[in-house]
Formats: sequence, C-alpha cells, structure tokens
Amino acid sequence: MNARNAYDTLLAHSRASADIASALNLLSWDQQVMLPPAAHAGRAGQIGALTAILHRRACDPALGDWLAACEGSDLTRDAASPEAANIRELRRDYDQAVKIPESLAVALAQAASLGQRAWELARKENDFNAFAPHLSTLLDLSRQKAEVLGYAGEAYDALLDLFEPGETVAGVAPILAELRDAATDILAAIADAPPPAPLPAGPYPAAGQAALLAQVTARLGLPRTASRLDVSTHPFSTLIGPGDARITTRFDEGDFTKAFFGAVHETGHALYSLGHAGPAHYGTPMGEAASFAVHESQSRLWENQVARSLPFWEFMLPLAAEQFPQLAGCTPEAVFRAVGATHPGLIRVDADETTYNPHIVLRFELELALIRKDLAVADLPGAWNEKSQAILGLTPPDNALGCLQDVHWSTGAFGYFPTYSLGNIYAACLFEAAGQAIPDLSARLAAGDFAPLLAWLGTAIHEKGRLLRPRALVAAATGRTPTAGPLVRHLRAKAAAIYGI
Amino acid sequence: MNARNAYDTLLAHSRASADIASALNLLSWDQQVMLPPAAHAGRAGQIGALTAILHRRACDPALGDWLAACEGSDLTRDAASPEAANIRELRRDYDQAVKIPESLAVALAQAASLGQRAWELARKENDFNAFAPHLSTLLDLSRQKAEVLGYAGEAYDALLDLFEPGETVAGVAPILAELRDAATDILAAIADAPPPAPLPAGPYPAAGQAALLAQVTARLGLPRTASRLDVSTHPFSTLIGPGDARITTRFDEGDFTKAFFGAVHETGHALYSLGHAGPAHYGTPMGEAASFAVHESQSRLWENQVARSLPFWEFMLPLAAEQFPQLAGCTPEAVFRAVGATHPGLIRVDADETTYNPHIVLRFELELALIRKDLAVADLPGAWNEKSQAILGLTPPDNALGCLQDVHWSTGAFGYFPTYSLGNIYAACLFEAAGQAIPDLSARLAAGDFAPLLAWLGTAIHEKGRLLRPRALVAAATGRTPTAGPLVRHLRAKAAAIYGI
Repeated sequence: MNARNAYDTLLAHSRASADIASALNLLSWDQQVMLPPAAHAGRAGQIGALTAILHRRACDPALGDWLAACEGSDLTRDAASPEAANIRELRRDYDQAVKIPESLAVALAQAASLGQRAWELARKENDFNAFAPHLSTLLDLSRQKAEVLGYAGEAYDALLDLFEPGETVAGVAPILAELRDAATDILAAIADAPPPAPLPAGPYPAAGQAALLAQVTARLGLPRTASRLDVSTHPFSTLIGPGDARITTRFDEGDFTKAFFGAVHETGHALYSLGHAGPAHYGTPMGEAASFAVHESQSRLWENQVARSLPFWEFMLPLAAEQFPQLAGCTPEAVFRAVGATHPGLIRVDADETTYNPHIVLRFELELALIRKDLAVADLPGAWNEKSQAILGLTPPDNALGCLQDVHWSTGAFGYFPTYSLGNIYAACLFEAAGQAIPDLSARLAAGDFAPLLAWLGTAIHEKGRLLRPRALVAAATGRTPTAGPLVRHLRAKAAAIYGI
Repeated sequence: MNARNAYDTLLAHSRASADIASALNLLSWDQQVMLPPAAHAGRAGQIGALTAILHRRACDPALGDWLAACEGSDLTRDAASPEAANIRELRRDYDQAVKIPESLAVALAQAASLGQRAWELARKENDFNAFAPHLSTLLDLSRQKAEVLGYAGEAYDALLDLFEPGETVAGVAPILAELRDAATDILAAIADAPPPAPLPAGPYPAAGQAALLAQVTARLGLPRTASRLDVSTHPFSTLIGPGDARITTRFDEGDFTKAFFGAVHETGHALYSLGHAGPAHYGTPMGEAASFAVHESQSRLWENQVARSLPFWEFMLPLAAEQFPQLAGCTPEAVFRAVGATHPGLIRVDADETTYNPHIVLRFELELALIRKDLAVADLPGAWNEKSQAILGLTPPDNALGCLQDVHWSTGAFGYFPTYSLGNIYAACLFEAAGQAIPDLSARLAAGDFAPLLAWLGTAIHEKGRLLRPRALVAAATGRTPTAGPLVRHLRAKAAAIYGI
C-alpha cells in the first residue's frame, strides 16, 4: 500500500471510530441529562460495550502498518502540514493504546468504576478509610500504567502527559509555585481592604435565568442550530458529534451568577469544540482538541477574562436587569466588583480567580507525593489538612471538605489537576495577545460584539486542532513562550481595581 | 464446546449486541427529539457505523457453531422452554442475516435512504415521477431479498415473514377481506344515521394536555422511573434499553384528542416493551417483542378497546375537565360517541377504527401486485385511485394524498402494512379474552383501575417474549385460534352504541 492510500485508510478508520465515539458521548450525555432512573444499570453495560469496541479499534495492528507506510513518506516532509500532524498524533494515540495491555486497561476501568462509587459513599459518610483501599489500588495501577507508557523523568510525567502532551513535573512545578506565591501576595495586599458589596438578594427565578442564558450564549457566538442547553446536577459541556456541542447548567434561585458564569464557562468549551471539529477535519487529530489545558483555556477566557470584566457588564447589566428588576439599581462597576471578589475558602469549585490556583497546587503536590510513594495513602488526610493550612490558610473541619472533596482521584485521574492552572495561564496569555491584535477589544466587549475575539481564537487556536503541542500552540498564537506572567498581571490588576490596592 | 457453554456464549453475544443496539436506539430517539439541526448530517454517519457493527455481529460465523452445538441437545428437548425458544429464534435471526449478502444489505440501506429523501420531496411537490425510479429500485432489491431468503408460496411471503413470522399471503388475504367487507357493511348501515356531536371547541392549551398525559400514562401503568414523554414531529415509542421505554407526542391546541389517543397508543407499545424486556431475558429473544402485529395489538388495545370505551371516559372525563373547563358540560357518553365516530377519509393515519382496515387492504393489494409484477410502477397512481374509490368510496385529488401518502414503501418496507390490521385483530381477541378472565373489567376501567388488565397482558403476552410465534401466542393467551371475529363484533357493537343501528 502506498503512503497516500495508507493515509486515507488511516483517516477513514479514525473517522469511523469518531462516529462510534459519538454514540458513546450521547450515551453519557443522556445519562446525565435525560435517563429515567430505572435505566442506569443498563446504561453502564451499553457504555462498556462501546468502550470495548473503541479500545479494540485503537489497538488494531493494521493501524501500525498504515502508520509505518506513512512515516518517512512525502506526507511527513513538512512537519507543519495537517498530514504530518495527523500521522504524528495518530502514532502517539496508537503507541499509547498498544502499550497498555488489555488486562491493565480492564483493571483500571473496573477500579475507576468501583472507586468512584466508593468515593461517593465515603464523601457522604465522611469516611476516608472506606475509600483508602480503592485509592491504593488506583495508585498501584496508575504506577503500572506509567511504567508501560514509559517516561524520561519520573512516573508522574507519563500520567500528566496523557492529559497534557509534553508536560512534565519539572515543567509545571515552577509555574504552579509562581501562581501560589502571587496569590499569597495578593491576599496579603487586600487583607485590610473592605470587601465589595454583594449583589442584591434573590429570588432570581429559574425561568429568567434560562432566558438570560439563551441570550448570552447566543451572543457569545454559540449557534442554537448546533448546540443545546439543558439542566443537569453537575454542569458540563460535551461535543456529541459534528455540529452538536451541548452544554448543561443548574439554577440556584438565590444567586444567578452560579448558572451564569457556569454557562459562560461551558460555552467557552463548546465554542472551541465547534471550532476544532469542523467538517474538513472532523474525526481526525486535526479536528480534535489540543489538550485538556487548551480546552480549559477557552472556557476560562470567556468566563474570567471576558464575562467577569467591567466592559462586559456595561453590555450585560441592562439585559440582566430586564430579567431581574432588583439589578436595576446596580452599576456595571458594582457587578464587576461583586463577581470579582476574592474570598478564600475550602472548596475548589467555588474558588474565585485568585485563590483557585493554590487549590491546584495543593492537589498537585499531594498526588505527586502519592505517585512517588513519598506519601502513604493512610497519611493523606493529615497531609491534606497541613498543606491546606499552609497554602490556603484554612484547615478543613473534615475529610469530606478536605481530601475527599474532588472526584478525580477516585477514577484514577492522577495528573489531571495541573491542566486547570495551565488552562488559566493560557487563557490569560491568549487574552493579552487578543487585546493586542484587536486594539478596540474592550469597546467591542462593552458593545456586546464578541465576534472579533471569537474569530481571533478560531484562527489562533480552534482551527489548529492538534497541529501543535499545547505550549507551542499558545506560543504560535501569542508570539511568545507562555508564562504565568499574563495571568499574574491580570489578577493583580483586578485586585487593584476592586480593592484599590 | 458443550451445549451449555455454547448456549451461554450465544446469549452473552446476543446481550452484547443488544447493548450496542441500545446506543443505536438512542441515536435515533435523539435525532427525532433533541438533535440540533446542524448535526443531522453527522448523525447519519453515526447510525451507519453502529448498524455496520451490528450487521457484522449478526453474521458472525461463530454464531453458527454455537447454534449447532445447542441444536439437538438437552436444551432443545422441551420445545416450550425458554432455552429452546432462544435457540430457535437466534437460529432464525442468524439464518436470515447470513442469507442476505452484504452487498445486497448495503444496496437496500442506500436505496432506502435515498428513497426516503426522494419520497419526502415527491410528496411535497406532488410529483410521483420523481419517486418512481426509487420505488422501482426498491422493488427490485426487495424481490432479490425475497429470493435469497427463500419462501414456500410466493416472494411476498418472504418479506411479510420478516415483520410477522409465519404469515403468508394465503393466510392474511382472507382476514383482510373479511375486515374490508365488515367495514363496508357498517358504513352502509350507518349511512343515514345522524353523526354524533363533536367535542367542544378549543383551545386546549398544550400545558394542560401535557398535564393530562402525565396523569393518564402513569395511571395506565407506565412508570415515570422507566420512561419519558417528549415532543416530536412524528409521535413514536422506542425501547432504548432495560428500564428505558420512551414515548413522544405532539400537541394540537384545537383538538386534545390527537395527542391524547396518540400518547395512549404509544403507552401501549411502551408497556409491552417494559413487559418483555425484563432483567431476566433482556437482550435475548425471550426478552424481545414477538412481532410487529403483537406490538401493534398492545398499542391498539389500550388506544381503542380501553381509551375509546364508555367506562374509560366515566373515569377520565372529570380529570380532563379539570384541565379543560369547556368539557365540564359533557357527559362520558358524549365523549365516547365523539371519539368513536366513523368518518371515511383519504388519510390512513387519521382513520377511525372502522375505516382503518380498508386503508390497509388497499395498500396490501397494491404492494402485493407490485412485488408480483402484476402492476407496473408507472401504473401505481391510477391503480391506487381506482382501488381507493372501490374500497373507500373516495378518489384522492392528487398523489400526495394518494399513493405518496405513506413512508413505508420509500424505505422498502413491503410486507409491513398487514401487521397493522393483524394488530387490530389481536387487540380485539385479547381484550375479549381479558374480559372473560376479569369479569368486572368494565367496572375496573370505569374506576381507573387498569392494573388487572395490565397484569393479564403481562402474563399472557409481555412475559412470553418470542416464546411462541404470533398466532400461537395469541391462541395460547385467548384459548382459541385468532380470527377477525372479535374485532368485527367490537366494531359492530360500537356502531350500534353510537349510531343506534
């Protein structure tokens, strides 16, 4: 088979797998949004059946043959071409898939399934000991996975690389430390400043919130013809297939900002999904997300850099006040200040922009110590509480609010947390660069004209798919190596504007 | 491999296929109920990918080996055992699947896809000639399918058997003729009788209709924990997976009875689906529907024998009047008469109980002539119009209201139509037998107590799955060979009650 035939066959295989993955995405979306309660047990089997099919396809030895026929051919001569990128990334996916023996893949899937159920119960009962054996098993299996995947530095690198290609402990640790120190500085600087006034009390009826979300998501550029907004317990975004990016939210009638910023966040994910998964490249690496951090950069940029900005509320406040009369007396400045307030707390998902990253540092350092065996599972609760006091200045009253807080470890997702902070960093880098490329960006945001920003992100990030590895992608988009600098500047400027420091 | 191991392996394969089929069902449900418009093109590919996987599984030669190991073993000694039925039906499914070459299966699927799109356009444009070549292709391919499947009598039998195992032209033609003649007699008898008064005029707000449907579907026994009611252009019922039977409806604010009887009809389907697809047999023939006619018998029984009865409206009218005050002045008798009125018309899906079956006779006779090549495609419009005049006493003003009316032929579903009338017949047979088994059935219906009827159907039909072939199943349930007699008696009695003939 010549290289061109092999490449076409490879891409057809990739696209067919994407079609099956679409069905899997839909099974999962439906489970969280639509599924009748009696059907949950059956749904697990359906998800398992398609997962097994996809795993077998991903390990198909024919892929190795087709890849070998492509590699070193004319198709890979220009490393910056879509063809070369597709071949490089399909090689990465294939090598990863075949390195993990089916027995280990099955053991991990089962441990994750059992672990997540055990975690849910343990968190509810505040019983770390009930979860500890599952965590030990998941750590053992994850270390085995790291060994079969291989690494240059240390085992954790292999796990991190699955979420964030090319990242290592050596690469992310200093950036995370920089974010932690910046947060500490900002918190110290604002310690004596009076907090901004809160927004007017509710009720903010769910119907009004839904109407406002329909307006804002459409205005940000999410086409109703290619998306849906539904309600689920845990808000999320998912690309089901081409032209089908769905988001969910949940309504708190006492505080409209939860659903509002949540929906803007998920809209950011959905805009990226629709942007990379266009018809030309759908189902191939060029039509896929570059990484978890790049995905998070898109949600965070729209949520924090855009929707928590003062210009944004100049545009949005009148629309919000149409739904909620109690906002009519507010100024855009007052909303900007209220939704940008810093309030250290124990819960990561409720954290503000400034204190969010220290939560990540805490988790990164602990999961790294666990993988390294520097920390025993039995000692995790104590270590969490100590580090929480040291980093956040707060000690959780119990493990449910401490080391049992997040779902990630219960599914064996070690190496995931750093992608949140990297996403925050990339968001700030990209927004700073967009501001230079679009000189009147603030005025555009204040006018509710988000199209120039979306178009810039489309060209710089969305349409690139997996053409470049994440850091290189952001570097190419911004013209400089990504650093924590833009994010730290953004946080300091916001603290100055809100707290007058 | 011994017979027991082979049987267990066979059933595991069948269950895994059912899990994949669940994903396919969900893709289809979602397409009709939830899918954003931009995603339709992609959805076709997703459905195609899973269809191809299921087809390959259905033809897997290993199935033949496992079946051979089971057949003639102790497992098949008692022909009435679930094991023997599973083996017999899996053999039927496997033999059908392998007889159809992949090239023919693909050609049929493509012709059906193209045909349906061409039909939609042709009906809209009232342009039979645009559809005719597709119909010719579909007929050719269907005749080829009949040849490879084989038959004892004639080619049409092989197609009919796919929908209704064991049925033949020789078997259904006389029954359909009996129904046609009975309808002619009834129409003649009521020709001079004054029609019943219509129901009060609308509006019947959609919200009130939805509230009423939630009440009635739950009351009929459809558990909310295992079902959903959504809105779609074409109402339907689908079993997604275990514990997950979904129905849809659409609301006409001028006439609440359309959504009402439609939802009761779909509830009948859903009750059957949940009844046969219990945990013990799900994913195996014993957990599947016996046939299309048996499925239709369940929807028709609840729609016609139950929900269009006088006792039912004694219970239901007060609930309906709570939603729609204009009904407060009606009597149950008045509603019974209005919803049971006979009104010959051109449209099958709008037909009343009496004139419905003649619509089927018309279609059956024409599709039989087409398959036999007794009728050329070019002559179909004229033949339809002549037969419509002869059977219904009406000539369509155009082909859109004539031979382009139904979707079935555009997808190559020749042999499907008779199952509607067989379903009506089985519904009447079963309801008559249920009335003998539950002496106070009318009083129960008038009290809104549907549990005894559902329990009787559960034992007699639902839980039997594919244990028996359709006619034998109904015979076992009723204690006598199914005939058109009960349906004809039902229609005559209703005409007598409404028109005083």
